[in-house]
Amino acid sequence: MQAIRTPSRTVVAVGGNSLISAGAVNGNLDTHGLAREVCEELATIAQYRGGVVITHGNGPQVGFELLRNSMASSIVPPDGMDVNVAATQGYIGYFLQQVLGDVLEERGVDIPVTALITQVLVAPDDPAFRNPSKPVGPFYSLEDAGKAMDQHGWIMKEDAGRGWRRVVPSPKPRRILELEAIRTLVNAGQIVICVGGGGVPVVREGYKVRGVPAVIDKDHVSALLATRLEADTYVISTAVPHVYVNFGKPDRRAIEYATLEEMEHFVSMGEFAEGSMLPKIRASIGFLKHGGERVVITSPGNILRAMDGKAGTTIVHGTAAIKSGARLSEPD
Amino acid sequence: MQAIRTPSRTVVAVGGNSLISAGAVNGNLDTHGLAREVCEELATIAQYRGGVVITHGNGPQVGFELLRNSMASSIVPPDGMDVNVAATQGYIGYFLQQVLGDVLEERGVDIPVTALITQVLVAPDDPAFRNPSKPVGPFYSLEDAGKAMDQHGWIMKEDAGRGWRRVVPSPKPRRILELEAIRTLVNAGQIVICVGGGGVPVVREGYKVRGVPAVIDKDHVSALLATRLEADTYVISTAVPHVYVNFGKPDRRAIEYATLEEMEHFVSMGEFAEGSMLPKIRASIGFLKHGGERVVITSPGNILRAMDGKAGTTIVHGTAAIKSGARLSEPD
Repeated sequence: MQAIRTPSRTVVAVGGNSLISAGAVNGNLDTHGLAREVCEELATIAQYRGGVVITHGNGPQVGFELLRNSMASSIVPPDGMDVNVAATQGYIGYFLQQVLGDVLEERGVDIPVTALITQVLVAPDDPAFRNPSKPVGPFYSLEDAGKAMDQHGWIMKEDAGRGWRRVVPSPKPRRILELEAIRTLVNAGQIVICVGGGGVPVVREGYKVRGVPAVIDKDHVSALLATRLEADTYVISTAVPHVYVNFGKPDRRAIEYATLEEMEHFVSMGEFAEGSMLPKIRASIGFLKHGGERVVITSPGNILRAMDGKAGTTIVHGTAAIKSGARLSEPD
Repeated sequence: MQAIRTPSRTVVAVGGNSLISAGAVNGNLDTHGLAREVCEELATIAQYRGGVVITHGNGPQVGFELLRNSMASSIVPPDGMDVNVAATQGYIGYFLQQVLGDVLEERGVDIPVTALITQVLVAPDDPAFRNPSKPVGPFYSLEDAGKAMDQHGWIMKEDAGRGWRRVVPSPKPRRILELEAIRTLVNAGQIVICVGGGGVPVVREGYKVRGVPAVIDKDHVSALLATRLEADTYVISTAVPHVYVNFGKPDRRAIEYATLEEMEHFVSMGEFAEGSMLPKIRASIGFLKHGGERVVITSPGNILRAMDGKAGTTIVHGTAAIKSGARLSEPD
């Protein structure tokens, strides 16, 4: 079977948690569960729609890297966090290209899959650097947190009674340095895995770029990537099947279909949680405002049906939407 | 300044030891020393010759990964060695693309540089699997070695009185799974970093590929890559400025220029050390026998002069070589 080439482009952002297994086997990555399910769906999109670019989170995995670096620090000096992110891009990319390659091979479909190491430029004067807020890595006791602050200059914060964690800035993505390679491979009909963990955050200093300890929001950078690639569709694969209004309340209702304007309204009403659904919605709005046609937000296993409008949350421009307002599910 | 595009293709294999700093700072990778020097040379080749593909070793770095995995194993289950190799591809790739990017930026040269995660297929019945011989990772005491053998099923060997080390098979590379992406990017005039650490070794099991704990010789797989890309030149950057005859003896002489046939003669005379120069020479011979024009073996800082025939060891086909036999240096 041949891949059907169309000018369509789909960027799919896969959550880091859907790549981790409870059993924590090879690479602490789950080659059988959710990730396999996601890869089956990605393969189908690539096969029938073409132009698939995959991005992924690395939250749990970079936590393992930081923990390992910390535990071995008496013998091997810890790497910078930029290096840890690059390492997770390496092994999650390996894992995804392997599982996706297996699925394609089983279907007799010959589409090359390749993971690229990706640096993402951020502004050194991004306000996020003055307010590190993104928790990363393991929990520490008060005493060990104090030591780590002294030794490494880390900023540590108490995390909801569970202990102390390092926090790092989450600056805005400005430019994807390896964009040209990504574009070249997608234009050649290949599947690309990139900007893992939001990309390795770097700042420019004269002629040099230099890694910084920070985490770029993967949904935000994936939206930037989708815009730059002139993708028509941006898919966010996450833990929940829909975006909801009144989330966590008895009258919670799933958003099945909404316009950009309706989503902006929901944002202004404070419907979405900071640090959870809100950044995904903001990234989606940004993509649609910069030329994107459609955003689909759903959970692994629902992506294909959601792209057909039969599951998940679809966000489109006003002119394309149902005139009578956002389509919400019946109350549960 | 524009890159000059010619049909020339150069594959450069960079030794893992030339990427490590004595000071062991960021990522234990040295962004100022040898690696910067190599990147300056790689940039010049890309600028004036075009078609540069870079491969690299990961010996010291994968050792750090194995050590960290081991030291944190009570909390985070250790990854498979395939995953460790992929992680080093990620962070060494990041580092190389960053330093090389800096050099190109400083020169005002716009050539994209991208590191790819690379899997390399090996045969499950490769004789190497019956005789694991490649030492990897940290040294263990006899007691800890015994425990590791019991717990992880590792094979451990005593290493020259320095302690016990894990040994893994070193199977032959059969196929580079991401070759198509590498070729696409090189054809588009971009610089590609790939098959780091010899590539992640995988075997095929039905429709699936599966990582195996092994190390593929990076010079061998780089020669395979050079052949598949129809490269004209294969450069091996290593610790010594030349290949030598009578190495380690008072009448040691550097080989400046030799034919394939002369090198085969030196091999048959046992001139080159197993596990050191011999695999490089075997890889070089393989490249030349499969269509390659020229092999250059030298140390960082000498690559450009060596490609001009003014340093290092050059190996060519008989018809291109000096008729009077291998050109050797004067005895020291």
